[in-house]
Amino acid sequence: MNSRKKELLSLNPNRLFSADPTQRAIAQRLYADVKNLPILSPHGHTDPRWFAEDASFGNPTELLIKPDHYVFRMLYSQGISMESLGIRTHDGTATASDPREIWRIFAQHFYLFRGTPSQLWLEHVFSEVFGLEHRLNEHTADEYYDRINAALQSDAYRPRALFDRFNIECLATTESPLDTLEHHIKIRDSGWQGNVITAFRPDPVTDPDFEGFRENVSALGELTQLDTSSYTQYLQALMQRRAFFKSLGATSTDHGNPTAITADLTREQAQSLFEKVLTGDFSAQDAETFRGQMLTEMAAMSLEDGLVMQIHPGSHRNHNQTVFKRFGRDKGADIPSQTNYVDALKPLLNKFGHRTDLSIILFTLDETTYSRELAPLAGHYPCLKLGPSWWFHDSPEGMRRFREQVTETAGFYNTVGFNDDTRAFLSIPARHDVARRMDCTWLAQLVAEHRITEDDAQALAQDLSYNLAKRAYKL
Amino acid sequence: MNSRKKELLSLNPNRLFSADPTQRAIAQRLYADVKNLPILSPHGHTDPRWFAEDASFGNPTELLIKPDHYVFRMLYSQGISMESLGIRTHDGTATASDPREIWRIFAQHFYLFRGTPSQLWLEHVFSEVFGLEHRLNEHTADEYYDRINAALQSDAYRPRALFDRFNIECLATTESPLDTLEHHIKIRDSGWQGNVITAFRPDPVTDPDFEGFRENVSALGELTQLDTSSYTQYLQALMQRRAFFKSLGATSTDHGNPTAITADLTREQAQSLFEKVLTGDFSAQDAETFRGQMLTEMAAMSLEDGLVMQIHPGSHRNHNQTVFKRFGRDKGADIPSQTNYVDALKPLLNKFGHRTDLSIILFTLDETTYSRELAPLAGHYPCLKLGPSWWFHDSPEGMRRFREQVTETAGFYNTVGFNDDTRAFLSIPARHDVARRMDCTWLAQLVAEHRITEDDAQALAQDLSYNLAKRAYKL
Amino acid sequence: MNSRKKELLSLNPNRLFSADPTQRAIAQRLYADVKNLPILSPHGHTDPRWFAEDASFGNPTELLIKPDHYVFRMLYSQGISMESLGIRTHDGTATASDPREIWRIFAQHFYLFRGTPSQLWLEHVFSEVFGLEHRLNEHTADEYYDRINAALQSDAYRPRALFDRFNIECLATTESPLDTLEHHIKIRDSGWQGNVITAFRPDPVTDPDFEGFRENVSALGELTQLDTSSYTQYLQALMQRRAFFKSLGATSTDHGNPTAITADLTREQAQSLFEKVLTGDFSAQDAETFRGQMLTEMAAMSLEDGLVMQIHPGSHRNHNQTVFKRFGRDKGADIPSQTNYVDALKPLLNKFGHRTDLSIILFTLDETTYSRELAPLAGHYPCLKLGPSWWFHDSPEGMRRFREQVTETAGFYNTVGFNDDTRAFLSIPARHDVARRMDCTWLAQLVAEHRITEDDAQALAQDLSYNLAKRAYKL
Repeated sequence: MNSRKKELLSLNPNRLFSADPTQRAIAQRLYADVKNLPILSPHGHTDPRWFAEDASFGNPTELLIKPDHYVFRMLYSQGISMESLGIRTHDGTATASDPREIWRIFAQHFYLFRGTPSQLWLEHVFSEVFGLEHRLNEHTADEYYDRINAALQSDAYRPRALFDRFNIECLATTESPLDTLEHHIKIRDSGWQGNVITAFRPDPVTDPDFEGFRENVSALGELTQLDTSSYTQYLQALMQRRAFFKSLGATSTDHGNPTAITADLTREQAQSLFEKVLTGDFSAQDAETFRGQMLTEMAAMSLEDGLVMQIHPGSHRNHNQTVFKRFGRDKGADIPSQTNYVDALKPLLNKFGHRTDLSIILFTLDETTYSRELAPLAGHYPCLKLGPSWWFHDSPEGMRRFREQVTETAGFYNTVGFNDDTRAFLSIPARHDVARRMDCTWLAQLVAEHRITEDDAQALAQDLSYNLAKRAYKL
Repeated sequence: MNSRKKELLSLNPNRLFSADPTQRAIAQRLYADVKNLPILSPHGHTDPRWFAEDASFGNPTELLIKPDHYVFRMLYSQGISMESLGIRTHDGTATASDPREIWRIFAQHFYLFRGTPSQLWLEHVFSEVFGLEHRLNEHTADEYYDRINAALQSDAYRPRALFDRFNIECLATTESPLDTLEHHIKIRDSGWQGNVITAFRPDPVTDPDFEGFRENVSALGELTQLDTSSYTQYLQALMQRRAFFKSLGATSTDHGNPTAITADLTREQAQSLFEKVLTGDFSAQDAETFRGQMLTEMAAMSLEDGLVMQIHPGSHRNHNQTVFKRFGRDKGADIPSQTNYVDALKPLLNKFGHRTDLSIILFTLDETTYSRELAPLAGHYPCLKLGPSWWFHDSPEGMRRFREQVTETAGFYNTVGFNDDTRAFLSIPARHDVARRMDCTWLAQLVAEHRITEDDAQALAQDLSYNLAKRAYKL
Repeated sequence: MNSRKKELLSLNPNRLFSADPTQRAIAQRLYADVKNLPILSPHGHTDPRWFAEDASFGNPTELLIKPDHYVFRMLYSQGISMESLGIRTHDGTATASDPREIWRIFAQHFYLFRGTPSQLWLEHVFSEVFGLEHRLNEHTADEYYDRINAALQSDAYRPRALFDRFNIECLATTESPLDTLEHHIKIRDSGWQGNVITAFRPDPVTDPDFEGFRENVSALGELTQLDTSSYTQYLQALMQRRAFFKSLGATSTDHGNPTAITADLTREQAQSLFEKVLTGDFSAQDAETFRGQMLTEMAAMSLEDGLVMQIHPGSHRNHNQTVFKRFGRDKGADIPSQTNYVDALKPLLNKFGHRTDLSIILFTLDETTYSRELAPLAGHYPCLKLGPSWWFHDSPEGMRRFREQVTETAGFYNTVGFNDDTRAFLSIPARHDVARRMDCTWLAQLVAEHRITEDDAQALAQDLSYNLAKRAYKL
């Protein structure tokens, strides 16, 4: 089933546009206006060290395979062991170490990605970033390895040079409250103009089920010189760290709870629950309630400091027990779960839902909520907006479903444009390009079916590609 | 993001048809045959007083903004207060009162509706009903206000004249069993030929959670001269009111339970539960079971009197606590919930599911049930039919999803055509036009892909636009 | 609404392809390469007796109406009694017996199937298998009856002749562990070259809720000369029957549990639960856990003998109580239920999920799980693959949704090609043709939108039509 020959690699200028000539022509016009807009990447997981140190990215395998769980989850699903891909084990047991050998395995199995966004993104990177002319397969594996490897040694392929070349206006990373933000400080002090900001992700100190929660809360106390065994001071410590993050550019917080459940306890109940979860002796329900309470506390803090809240719920983390024990977190074994928003968000919304000075961006891994819950909620509550299709759904079909199921109830202006949410820095232009193309395709269909005018579509294309993100994330 | 100039408003004759030339040509042919068929509107919420009194509709703001929760929910979601839109508060606190100012706010924010069905419906009304030539925005706000306002003072824009002009063959309103149907009587006695009928919506006296339930049950007793503290006489009273509604044209009942749960209690259990809910001291589960029991009782009554049952479940009413306290019900804050039918309907179906002389029309706000539950149920049980895509899903994409997910399992003949379910009288022709266009578009795709013949599509277009509603609702 | 005249019946060579000329041309090229590939039917419910005895199929009604629950569920839903269709009652009460009269009822109501896959399949059979030139309706009912009836008396229409004519390379039936496989033995010994294999469906002896479970477990003991009141010997007996099935060609097992729940009990817990369910005195939860435990036991056995596991969960069987009492199982009254996989499969996956020598094929009746659960699971776990869209979703739109919602996360190579899962032998070529056409249509769209190359699409079309099924089912 894999490839038998050396094939030309070319990115068709009309890729992702409808084959219908009328729609395609409209999409081309809309896209021409937005394709070169600067990239706003207000939510993602790139490593700020890259931009602080500006060192070479190493070799193709280190850059493109090992950090990309989209890539190795697919290979693993087809019987290729993570050991043979050199994924680092928890306990340091040796795995494959020759990056070229790993690259060959990847190349040989690249056909598995047919029809997936990984193929779209990677071929974009191969062609646009590295100028490769043939498709990746077992026959071109070594050519790829050598060409990419050579490029990575040159100054033009260092992180800052690529950042500038990619025309990124703003890039947000995501850090724990315990992070010293040393890399962000270094970037700020370096004189480099690249706008790399942080975002505040408090899960390590707000989720009682997070590995090391108690130690994390203690560390938070040390960092802030506050007694974080007191709920009041714990909240103060969080507020203090938020201010510190803000001073390094943060405009948002991010919350990765397993569910969207919120709570609105009295101060006494909250204090008492906090003491309980700090003991380490608590139920699953306690942990859920505490996380929910912290969402509401964070909303209250956002009303103070203006940080935008992002809620990314619904992932069953580390589903594969064998993989988790051997390789740890973030190894492609997170699986979406059914997620409820209507009941779950009620306590927070009862308290703050009507506020126009609060901004909460909701994401989902459960597409059934688009038309049933999320669009009706965002189409009503002033404080709610919808984040773009996320993670498994950050794909052409996923984006299409998002627009089809959300637009008619929430409109376009209760959405916030695209964000890439990626660890794979080189894929950022590819991902934004896919999003812009899919938005233009969707708008072109609406125009071709006389559901909106082309003038409106032109304005919308700008909004979806740039303006909405800028406004929603206060960039 | 809003409009910068005066733009022409024109309704493209091919709107909503596929851009593909083959499909479009077929859709044009199918639509030509059905576009002028009379409108059957067997389910909706227009005010019968309009047709009884035939007074002017007032001003543009009273007519088009204040009663349309689709409109003000979107404005509210973008930070525009309901006070500034003049929405009447619960306690009579003053809100904005200058209708022209409110209209300007609406006009200035009309761009928010891009891509929504509200834009389609409203532009249809602006163009077809009022003959306006430019699009609504801040530059045309006053022109709109003046032109519409002037029209509303003329006889041609009175309710009955519009009813006739709209070619409505039958329009059903929805009333409580406690309603005296005075307006319907007045219409009947007026000599006007317009066919405005009622529908029986017993929620105020069958839902223990309804505001004033106990008082309502008492009032039902007074109205019928029966002792409605006895379950037997309570049922008799309901049967009596159904007969009265039938005498004023009703062919259907309507049930807006939060879920689709049904129950089939023994007479003793039902009697005892009725007594309990009448005390006011009952659990959420008691209320749910009682509502479920009443669905089964209503089905039994339908077998007697032939009224068609409509079940509209799955709305979490008044989700926004702040809005509910200040403005009351029906303020755009109802949010759909996940809805189960397979287990929920079992008690009723065990009893009556096989009956060919019972007709129950099911609606949903949870589109996930289309292919999983509703189409398989309606494609099997003789008593079940599927209502059209509803409320948030009464939109081009919603209609497309309905047909795509329902047709292959339930066929076309277990559906009941379109109904508009609207309070916005002027939008009725627009809504039926959207439905006819979307049905023709769907049929045209089936023809173009050789999945049905064009002869069959032609027959189906007639059925979906007219015949199915006529038959299903016994009009 | 039914037909008014004698219409020509013709299968358009481009049926199911997109109307867009670019997409259609690509689909035509892809389809030309796969349309004549042999049929692999690795999962279905045809009767092996047909191929063992090779007798005539009887009359049109016996062949095409009575065994096809897709057909009579639709007729029943429109008020046509099953009695009038001659469906055999449980208690032997007389129903209609004149096959020609039944055929006429069917013909008169054939318009009900407009837009359904039954119409596609049946018209394929009418045209391709029987050479009929006009469409079925009340005017052609007798012509149809006579022509089909006559054909069925000829040798060319006997089971084996049709099997050869249909170019079936392999056909799997499904049998209970208690089945003696006499028909398969007879086929094997007959010298006929047709490859008809069995599949192992243990529900009658592994599901405590199955009719006659206890007697079935006893019968299993007698058949294997083992004491199946002992859990150890019960498992041995199952292993022995698996080996016997394997000797008659079985490459797979099949499991029709109501849910996807699995369990991983200790041997002591399992033994004790087994003893409990054998007493007949057990809770619904016990039955669920036992079925779940048996899935895990079956996975362990598959690791021994290499049989591929198929899990077909999520059907609420015999939903219509009236029909079940009078007509028994499999009468079109099975309704899908919401199905969870992420939590349900965890016990089994914790134990065996990482094994590359285990193969489990998952099916669903709950399409919401495609993008949320199934594609993420299959795109990660080495032991999981996804079966094609199933039962109610084995239709053009169902197939489209499957590819749209599954491909981007799981890729094509974690799916297993098509299987027809049918009792309707004559529809097998029609069903595979629909699947091949829909796959080519989907691939053509990807090519036309430059998301894959046409070379890749060509390889994929072969894989989806033939190679994947051959490999996944070890044929």
